[in-house]
Amino acid sequence: MLIVMNHNAGKKQIEAVSKAIEKMGYTAAPIPGGERTAIGVLGNKGYVDDSNIRDLPGVQEVIHVSKPYKLVSRDFHPKGTVVKISGVEIGEGRRPVIIAGPCAVENEEQILKAARAVKAAGADMLRGGAFKPRTGPHTFQGLKEEGLKLLALASKETGLPVVTEVMSPDNVGLVASYADVLQVGARNMQNFDLLRELGTIRKPVLLKRGLSATLEEFLAAAEYILAGGNGAVILCERGIRTFETATRNTLDLSVVPLIKELSHLPITVDPSHATGRRSLVPSMAKAALVAGAHGVLLEVHPEPEKALSDGAQSLTLQGFARLMDDIKRLMPFLGFPA
Amino acid sequence: MLIVMNHNAGKKQIEAVSKAIEKMGYTAAPIPGGERTAIGVLGNKGYVDDSNIRDLPGVQEVIHVSKPYKLVSRDFHPKGTVVKISGVEIGEGRRPVIIAGPCAVENEEQILKAARAVKAAGADMLRGGAFKPRTGPHTFQGLKEEGLKLLALASKETGLPVVTEVMSPDNVGLVASYADVLQVGARNMQNFDLLRELGTIRKPVLLKRGLSATLEEFLAAAEYILAGGNGAVILCERGIRTFETATRNTLDLSVVPLIKELSHLPITVDPSHATGRRSLVPSMAKAALVAGAHGVLLEVHPEPEKALSDGAQSLTLQGFARLMDDIKRLMPFLGFPA
Amino acid sequence: MLIVMNHNAGKKQIEAVSKAIEKMGYTAAPIPGGERTAIGVLGNKGYVDDSNIRDLPGVQEVIHVSKPYKLVSRDFHPKGTVVKISGVEIGEGRRPVIIAGPCAVENEEQILKAARAVKAAGADMLRGGAFKPRTGPHTFQGLKEEGLKLLALASKETGLPVVTEVMSPDNVGLVASYADVLQVGARNMQNFDLLRELGTIRKPVLLKRGLSATLEEFLAAAEYILAGGNGAVILCERGIRTFETATRNTLDLSVVPLIKELSHLPITVDPSHATGRRSLVPSMAKAALVAGAHGVLLEVHPEPEKALSDGAQSLTLQGFARLMDDIKRLMPFLGFPA
Amino acid sequence: MLIVMNHNAGKKQIEAVSKAIEKMGYTAAPIPGGERTAIGVLGNKGYVDDSNIRDLPGVQEVIHVSKPYKLVSRDFHPKGTVVKISGVEIGEGRRPVIIAGPCAVENEEQILKAARAVKAAGADMLRGGAFKPRTGPHTFQGLKEEGLKLLALASKETGLPVVTEVMSPDNVGLVASYADVLQVGARNMQNFDLLRELGTIRKPVLLKRGLSATLEEFLAAAEYILAGGNGAVILCERGIRTFETATRNTLDLSVVPLIKELSHLPITVDPSHATGRRSLVPSMAKAALVAGAHGVLLEVHPEPEKALSDGAQSLTLQGFARLMDDIKRLMPFLGFPA
Repeated sequence: MLIVMNHNAGKKQIEAVSKAIEKMGYTAAPIPGGERTAIGVLGNKGYVDDSNIRDLPGVQEVIHVSKPYKLVSRDFHPKGTVVKISGVEIGEGRRPVIIAGPCAVENEEQILKAARAVKAAGADMLRGGAFKPRTGPHTFQGLKEEGLKLLALASKETGLPVVTEVMSPDNVGLVASYADVLQVGARNMQNFDLLRELGTIRKPVLLKRGLSATLEEFLAAAEYILAGGNGAVILCERGIRTFETATRNTLDLSVVPLIKELSHLPITVDPSHATGRRSLVPSMAKAALVAGAHGVLLEVHPEPEKALSDGAQSLTLQGFARLMDDIKRLMPFLGFPA
Repeated sequence: MLIVMNHNAGKKQIEAVSKAIEKMGYTAAPIPGGERTAIGVLGNKGYVDDSNIRDLPGVQEVIHVSKPYKLVSRDFHPKGTVVKISGVEIGEGRRPVIIAGPCAVENEEQILKAARAVKAAGADMLRGGAFKPRTGPHTFQGLKEEGLKLLALASKETGLPVVTEVMSPDNVGLVASYADVLQVGARNMQNFDLLRELGTIRKPVLLKRGLSATLEEFLAAAEYILAGGNGAVILCERGIRTFETATRNTLDLSVVPLIKELSHLPITVDPSHATGRRSLVPSMAKAALVAGAHGVLLEVHPEPEKALSDGAQSLTLQGFARLMDDIKRLMPFLGFPA
Repeated sequence: MLIVMNHNAGKKQIEAVSKAIEKMGYTAAPIPGGERTAIGVLGNKGYVDDSNIRDLPGVQEVIHVSKPYKLVSRDFHPKGTVVKISGVEIGEGRRPVIIAGPCAVENEEQILKAARAVKAAGADMLRGGAFKPRTGPHTFQGLKEEGLKLLALASKETGLPVVTEVMSPDNVGLVASYADVLQVGARNMQNFDLLRELGTIRKPVLLKRGLSATLEEFLAAAEYILAGGNGAVILCERGIRTFETATRNTLDLSVVPLIKELSHLPITVDPSHATGRRSLVPSMAKAALVAGAHGVLLEVHPEPEKALSDGAQSLTLQGFARLMDDIKRLMPFLGFPA
Repeated sequence: MLIVMNHNAGKKQIEAVSKAIEKMGYTAAPIPGGERTAIGVLGNKGYVDDSNIRDLPGVQEVIHVSKPYKLVSRDFHPKGTVVKISGVEIGEGRRPVIIAGPCAVENEEQILKAARAVKAAGADMLRGGAFKPRTGPHTFQGLKEEGLKLLALASKETGLPVVTEVMSPDNVGLVASYADVLQVGARNMQNFDLLRELGTIRKPVLLKRGLSATLEEFLAAAEYILAGGNGAVILCERGIRTFETATRNTLDLSVVPLIKELSHLPITVDPSHATGRRSLVPSMAKAALVAGAHGVLLEVHPEPEKALSDGAQSLTLQGFARLMDDIKRLMPFLGFPA
């Protein structure tokens, strides 16, 4: 931690800050500069709560050098983590994983049709929502446990492992009893009770980045799960909220190579939610893979125009098959067989 | 709902969209314009899910005219709601309410000292966190039920009603058994299971706006609680996330008069979290009241430099008393006795 | 400047960075921490360009302690600047200044009518655009020199000094020959050639904050003008661009007290452009004054529904008079006679 | 244009709005809905200024259907534009163009060394700044005309056409006399006098997207140049400003396929400014090409650690050569020879 003092801060103020630092058990190292003095904090083992310091007289700014996460950091775990899910492996050095399926499970016919088709086209895992977070209370909220059962059925028939969202700590056990991977949605990225609960289970978690989460907050959210004892976390960039409304969200693809520098966890991309427009999904799926993503999540629906949610961003079965052909053509460039 | 077609959209595409609208049970009203045709949707009673339409050939854009909320709208409930809390009334036509206290309950001495001081200075309610959402897992997470008990003690001694945060559906009953008002924090504004649970209780809820929630999403979140049967919702603007980092968040004060146009619910402001800097809090508290807020939430700590969280944005007891003097001087301008 | 090294950075990397710092003429002060080493840079007299350092092996982050501005900083000029404009004074300790008038000068009748009315209601200065920046080329772009002449006429008749926008370095002389204060619009806040030109004149400049300018960039833009020799700069917060679209921009009112801490320059607020909605302007104008603004800019139009630009955010003459009554009632609270 | 009325708007208010529309020369088409009435505006030939309408009693919202641009729209010009620059062609169906060079021209040796190296590695054009916009006035501002001469020299020696920034209308002639393509920087995207001047010349313009420009504003800025008579505009996405500070800006790659839908103009990407970190540039350059960009701009410097600006985001000569090898390997996937 570094405390930057005002230009006018006097000797007394600098001493008072130094004393406060030492009261916290650290060492204070004043660095006089041309315009102002800064005071380094030495001896801390991790992130320091700055509340005792930030508002002392003469303090202009407090700058954190340590991060609010450690277990997820590549600094402390240089080797990339590979998460294993019933035969599928996702992470460093592995062939990128394609996770596809409808936004919501709607009925048996729909999910089976979707599952068979994405399997046939080459998908590695099936996605589909049984619990659906929706902006307003007057729209379709998912089939709940019935949906989980249909997902399990589709998984059994196709052999595809299943990823599906869990929205509250109560339901973690239930969802875990049906799904192979539990997804935390963007709106719940900082639902800390949910994260803590997911730290106690032994199934992989796919953690989506919050709409306005910084990279640091995203990694700190993953830290909750790892701190609880569950190391099988897959990160997922799904677009952030910005001033731009031409797309549903703004896909922040640059975080893919950056997360690979900062963390050992696998990072995937969801271009369907990020763009919100079917016509943009194939370009961005391929771009994500070339940017280094360990996998992509794609919404695919047998009849998007009849979908109960997010039809506009869902690929058709044919559209998905075409994209898979393209992705296969891209594989050699990425270092894997077509 | 209005569907805007591409400039090049042909007659067939326009007909196909019209047919899809009618299949949904609505009437399609094409409006040919100079550059392109738009198609109005008539006959809907509320928000229409656009998934079936948004991606049909020739469709450029879908524009929603109805809102994803109705119960919270002033359109359907012109009279302002006044929420009653053990003797305190908050809302239209009432004297603005001052809610003050520490960020977190830390121990008996701290909370009693704070409660007595804010009471003496003229506060109407006591705030304090027992369950604390924190970015990373390695910092103080609150005293939990022990904190609730201390809040109840402070309330009993001072007569101030208490508002405190609830973070998960499980804990709604527990928190409701101690608190007068249950607060939903910014990170949980779209924790829909929590909102649904709060719809079933008969205690007021203070709903904070999410870090990146639009006004429409904020009101739609309140709609969840009203739709569940609990009409006693107090809204709270606490700053949004923007590119600006000079303040902790960006206080979006213009939503105060705007929410008063759009909704009948009381709207309060939390300048402590919004600015994150003690020196800015008094100015913004007074500005909030002049902008029309029905109340303000203020962090006050007997010894901010020793606070376990958010010390930098907490007023001292003296600072709070000075601000209260100022607010009293402002009251006649707002139409209330000093 | 502080250079934060990676956790894994070795001794050699730390030495290489230290050497690079010393090559630049500064002193390097390594600060070993629990998790990583940081290196302080001593001896710089101002902002240091970090390009030579930022990308050396082992460097994680470069943190600037000095600011890219100095002349505008209160650190170096503790006394608040008061800008004098033909009898009007704006700045610290002065009665807040009300600047009112139409968005654009449209014709003689309109500007005279507006000028007389705002004068009668108590305005201190007249605003009105002769050169208008517009998003697209197919809308009204202002009366140009003809508009300047009409402004001068209105000024002569009412005695109100005039503020009007200048869009390019070429026109600085022309605009300065008619106007009392030259305005730099939000879109031109980083038009550095324009700022440099304005540094060479001896008339006050009203500098609007850019749509996505940080406070630091805003102050650095003012620094260009002061560095050129013109110290009479008035800052103006006019809303920033965020994800929220319910208002035209997001009025960032917290910067008012913050700028007063960081800089000695006067700070004003334009609630008309910030909110884009007439009904919100009075609340936010009063809030701005209570937050400490040295003045407010208000769009007022004799017939807003016929305005060639920004009619929706313009107050009517009656609306402005009502607001002025309110502002007068507020003055005693602010320490000035009603 | 569509005017959405309040739920409570009465017959009189609807009639008043209809009358105002007809006074503007258009036809009003009221569309009664379940909750509220909307009024369509028919007969307009393009974008309608809504100021006369937006604030009439009973109006809730005004929705624009027409766009503030027309000449740049693919609606009116279905065939993709190919811009020709001394032997290089950029646009639809052409091999993606690689534009490389230092951020700023610093001296003869530097620019010649860079030009030769990027040419040898396979670049198609040379970039380099002679006029540099900088946040604060106390940093290197470019060599100006001397820099233009050095660029021309490097161009002559290597045969690479040159793109360089122009910052003010005055300098358009000067820069055009040396450069093959004139660049408008992000900060000047809405410097309308500059855009107008560029409309009058007969050299291609590379227009960078503003830091907080929506897609609509970006295209409307290009419209200024086309409206002036210059159709040779190349668009460039270079990152937008968001809440995320882990990268310099947020590269909004999804606009690449979206701009290709909306406009016929070529679209390029600048991953160097977007990310601000050398280590992220290669991934994002390749991702941009796979997303469909017609070209990429890359900062390359012989000695980044000595660069006078933006060293941290500049590739080394070796780094650039390695990236070019990768790009060549990617070409067959994009449909071009390696």
